[in-house]
Amino acid sequence: MKIILVGASGTIGKAVVADLGERHDIIQAGRNGKDLAIDVTDPASIRSALSSVGEFDALVSATGAVHFGAFEEMDAEKYEIGIRNKLMGQVNLVLIGRDYITDNGSFTLTTGILSHDPIRYGSSAAMVNGAVDSFARSAAIEMPRGLRINTVSPGVITEALPNYAPYFRGFEPVPAAKAARAYAKSVEGLQTGQVYAVQ
Amino acid sequence: MKIILVGASGTIGKAVVADLGERHDIIQAGRNGKDLAIDVTDPASIRSALSSVGEFDALVSATGAVHFGAFEEMDAEKYEIGIRNKLMGQVNLVLIGRDYITDNGSFTLTTGILSHDPIRYGSSAAMVNGAVDSFARSAAIEMPRGLRINTVSPGVITEALPNYAPYFRGFEPVPAAKAARAYAKSVEGLQTGQVYAVQ
Repeated sequence: MKIILVGASGTIGKAVVADLGERHDIIQAGRNGKDLAIDVTDPASIRSALSSVGEFDALVSATGAVHFGAFEEMDAEKYEIGIRNKLMGQVNLVLIGRDYITDNGSFTLTTGILSHDPIRYGSSAAMVNGAVDSFARSAAIEMPRGLRINTVSPGVITEALPNYAPYFRGFEPVPAAKAARAYAKSVEGLQTGQVYAVQ
Repeated sequence: MKIILVGASGTIGKAVVADLGERHDIIQAGRNGKDLAIDVTDPASIRSALSSVGEFDALVSATGAVHFGAFEEMDAEKYEIGIRNKLMGQVNLVLIGRDYITDNGSFTLTTGILSHDPIRYGSSAAMVNGAVDSFARSAAIEMPRGLRINTVSPGVITEALPNYAPYFRGFEPVPAAKAARAYAKSVEGLQTGQVYAVQ
């Protein structure tokens, strides 16, 4: 399969390259993507990048920024960062990707455990994760041409603990390679409308 | 208690007035609110309305528009309607309401069954419901001054079936008076971070 991986240089992205790259042609995309430059906050950038690839069989998004901050200091502008990036950035990959993906292709987006297992500073991440999980469950039943869509909802990634450990005390860390298997399940399996919790 | 009810003239709002109004002082708010005019898509309107009330004990939101439409015709602009209205409209009621609500006060927002039990045309409703449920679960644990926040997630309301029945075949309808009890539980109880499914 020809698979576009957005966020290929991140912790999860690298593990997805290692897993899926053994069996498929991975186009590594990102803001400074090795193969493809794409800014998910800009629909014109998404369209330009995807049209330059032409047809592809799967799109995997392992990207999406949100603002982490104390709830008392969160305002509408800070929630907007996650809405524009991890929420509508990923949704726009699907909306625009519909025009280029092959029949029976798949979209796999990334959410995370904070939707239902919250931490301090995590209210924007929670909001966006819950939004994307529910969007995918619903969009799945209306997808045309046999297209599929799932999300992967990982816990804190083991390799990210040097940065995030103080915020995730007591959370069971998930090795990136384990999370990567959920992306493989989504891309190479036939399920749709699923939230793969790797937690 | 002094309770601001946004969306008081809607199907659910009227049932909340009938239930909570027996025991509390309800300020009926909405775009053309009987007691208070408020446009939830405009933060300046929210601040102006809430500051005119001064201190209050609870804010209940039973409002929030989204665009219903076939997934094939949904684009970023159509998702934006729900993001600005049912998602950030309700979130801004909380963010701004924090400045006026009394210690140990409560916020109760409205979501709905489509977050996890999708229908045709419902991908924006699903997205927004999932976002608000997860936001509330997360914001709850960081609320200052004993403030609480919950959501009520109803199924299709019996009284709304004349308009919505074709889209909700097989869904168990929920009488508005039953949904209203979940708002009473949120306002008059002590729980926080809960999604009250009335389905």
